[in-house]
Amino acid sequence: MNRFIPPKRTIMTPGPVEADPRVLQALSNPIIGQFDPVFTDLMNQTMEAVRRLFLTDNQWAFPIDGTSRSGMEAVMCSLIEPGDKVLVPIFGRFGYLLTEIAERCGASVHVIEKPWGEVFDPQEVTDEIKRLNPKITAIVHGETSTGCLQPLKDIGRFCRSTDRLFIVDAVATVGGVELRMDDWYIDAIAGGTQKCISGPSGSSPISYNSRAEKVMQERKQVEKGIRSEKEDAADHSRRIQSNYLDLTQLQDYWSPRRLNHHTEATSMLYALYESLRVIEEEGLEARISRHLSHEKAIAAGIKAMGLTIYNDHSWKLPVVTCVTVPDHVDEAGVRRMMLEEFGVEIASSFGPLQGKIWRIGAMGYSARKENVYHVLFALEAALLAHGFEANRGEAVQTALKMYTGVTASA
Amino acid sequence: MNRFIPPKRTIMTPGPVEADPRVLQALSNPIIGQFDPVFTDLMNQTMEAVRRLFLTDNQWAFPIDGTSRSGMEAVMCSLIEPGDKVLVPIFGRFGYLLTEIAERCGASVHVIEKPWGEVFDPQEVTDEIKRLNPKITAIVHGETSTGCLQPLKDIGRFCRSTDRLFIVDAVATVGGVELRMDDWYIDAIAGGTQKCISGPSGSSPISYNSRAEKVMQERKQVEKGIRSEKEDAADHSRRIQSNYLDLTQLQDYWSPRRLNHHTEATSMLYALYESLRVIEEEGLEARISRHLSHEKAIAAGIKAMGLTIYNDHSWKLPVVTCVTVPDHVDEAGVRRMMLEEFGVEIASSFGPLQGKIWRIGAMGYSARKENVYHVLFALEAALLAHGFEANRGEAVQTALKMYTGVTASA
Repeated sequence: MNRFIPPKRTIMTPGPVEADPRVLQALSNPIIGQFDPVFTDLMNQTMEAVRRLFLTDNQWAFPIDGTSRSGMEAVMCSLIEPGDKVLVPIFGRFGYLLTEIAERCGASVHVIEKPWGEVFDPQEVTDEIKRLNPKITAIVHGETSTGCLQPLKDIGRFCRSTDRLFIVDAVATVGGVELRMDDWYIDAIAGGTQKCISGPSGSSPISYNSRAEKVMQERKQVEKGIRSEKEDAADHSRRIQSNYLDLTQLQDYWSPRRLNHHTEATSMLYALYESLRVIEEEGLEARISRHLSHEKAIAAGIKAMGLTIYNDHSWKLPVVTCVTVPDHVDEAGVRRMMLEEFGVEIASSFGPLQGKIWRIGAMGYSARKENVYHVLFALEAALLAHGFEANRGEAVQTALKMYTGVTASA
Repeated sequence: MNRFIPPKRTIMTPGPVEADPRVLQALSNPIIGQFDPVFTDLMNQTMEAVRRLFLTDNQWAFPIDGTSRSGMEAVMCSLIEPGDKVLVPIFGRFGYLLTEIAERCGASVHVIEKPWGEVFDPQEVTDEIKRLNPKITAIVHGETSTGCLQPLKDIGRFCRSTDRLFIVDAVATVGGVELRMDDWYIDAIAGGTQKCISGPSGSSPISYNSRAEKVMQERKQVEKGIRSEKEDAADHSRRIQSNYLDLTQLQDYWSPRRLNHHTEATSMLYALYESLRVIEEEGLEARISRHLSHEKAIAAGIKAMGLTIYNDHSWKLPVVTCVTVPDHVDEAGVRRMMLEEFGVEIASSFGPLQGKIWRIGAMGYSARKENVYHVLFALEAALLAHGFEANRGEAVQTALKMYTGVTASA
């Protein structure tokens, strides 16, 4: 086996993106034991930081040791019992993922769908909730497959006022786009570390409130082999179907009880903690503004090049800019050249949009002006080489002007 | 938030143990995209190395992005359908975990139990299989809670000859104790990275053969949003209950089809790859011998100190030495002093053995003579400070003699 030395890439996809160098350094810290007081203190501090990340006062806020979808599955399988009615408003691929998870939990899943590229007027969702009367409404906040951002607050308020649960997939938005768990009445949420948080993939910060906890706790089963006699005698017929993703067990592990569950992923926790430190040093609001400013530069550059933005609406997801692939251009060929010749990675999309759009992310540490220049010049060069007459030099000059105020001499 | 700087620990527990410094360095490599050809090549090379680790020719051998129990749950929830009869022979805490997971998959779980500290004569298990006729027999190979090692080959041979499935939890043994997946007729297996593999917790290498795959494939459901029309029309009533841990989906992601599932945990894969490289450079057989030699030094040192080994049988798990806590000694106090004063971590156990034994691991990178000296002298010092008259100096001198051949002058 040869030593693995990764190439240096400029990653401008909707994730995984470049991890902050401080996070990469933190990953190489030596291991300490999971019940070492230094480690349990780190767990506690991380919980506090996850609360601040989601802007929540919830007691429960910690990472799941798995990639983003493990966080959503933990939330959903801990809340959903077979037969529960779940509404999933879908406006892209990751909405389907929520139906997929809910179905596997035995839910009776109902969907409403928007054409890809659009989002829901909150009223459409609340009307459907009224009609259907679901126990849970589950929705994606930032849909990376289409580059769209769903407004949540009015849906959350309605769910709360009618005592229903509202759960949100915030994988693509947390740490980069405005997201207010408590203000928006979100009962349970899951994020991902490999996008705007700028850590490696493999950890999913989640949070849930006491309303969600109450539902889960009715189904609690402490693990055999470590449970007490009293717990042994409890009724386990409604138990949560996963052991690994059972939030009632995980919260015992993350609480002073420290009831052994899995062995916390040490290095990934180091990474998450440092990611959150970086975010707090920058400040959440400043960070969101930074993402917006790079989005503007990318969008202006793309237009200056002579291309069209696919998701150019008020509901555009700020951290993903989708670009319509011009007719007769080899979509995959352009991306391949960008990667192989220029070391720049962008993405295409899924389903109906596969091969139709390019998706340019600007997330976390990847949202830097050097990267914006790099992706614009590489895309222009690859387009020219593929026979598309992009406006030469215009994209980078436009971005340069936005960043520096300097105009190219005529 | 303060910068987190972990203390330097000597970790002599049954895991998580010290990661190899080369693995820690690999963790800090920059991120690359999950469909970057350099990354998919790394995935392929890792699969090959996982095959060699388990000594198997199976096509499917890859890590689950979660801690060890996520690997066992992936195997079990992909194989078990509601109502399936599953036999779990239990000889410690982690046997209970297997029942817990199987029950949550809807299995009809049957157990046979040995008193903690013993293992099964394979005949006892095969007799029960004959009587019960289970679809699956699931067992732990190395039970860290009791420090016992279960012989597997005769059980595996019987299951194969009668066309039943045999699945094994090899979390504690893989990479440190003899384990031969194919020769022992194991159909599916899961390991952990934070023990003898000497990586961080958070990744679980698994493998399964074509017999296991056939059972899973009957239940296959490609994810909505990325499945084809033909796949859409398939019968999904028997689908696997987890999306995240669905091996039929994961194998499509790990195959040339590269069907998108989760975003592979980049840094953890870097770590696993480097761990496996370290193992191959040492050689599996040499590595197993190394673990045995350190076990001998620890055991001899413990006895020389005047203590009793709890699991001193032919079925002792070589990588975990359990020590009976002497009467009237403050079990937790001794461990606390070892950690706080000497930076050395050992463990107690669970259930009936909690507070009754200390468990001293010697796994992976932690299985080094410096660590053996360190744990022996720290345990001796803490025992003396807690009023137990250990034989002063004898433990380290005994180990020193074994490592160097030099006897302390009288």
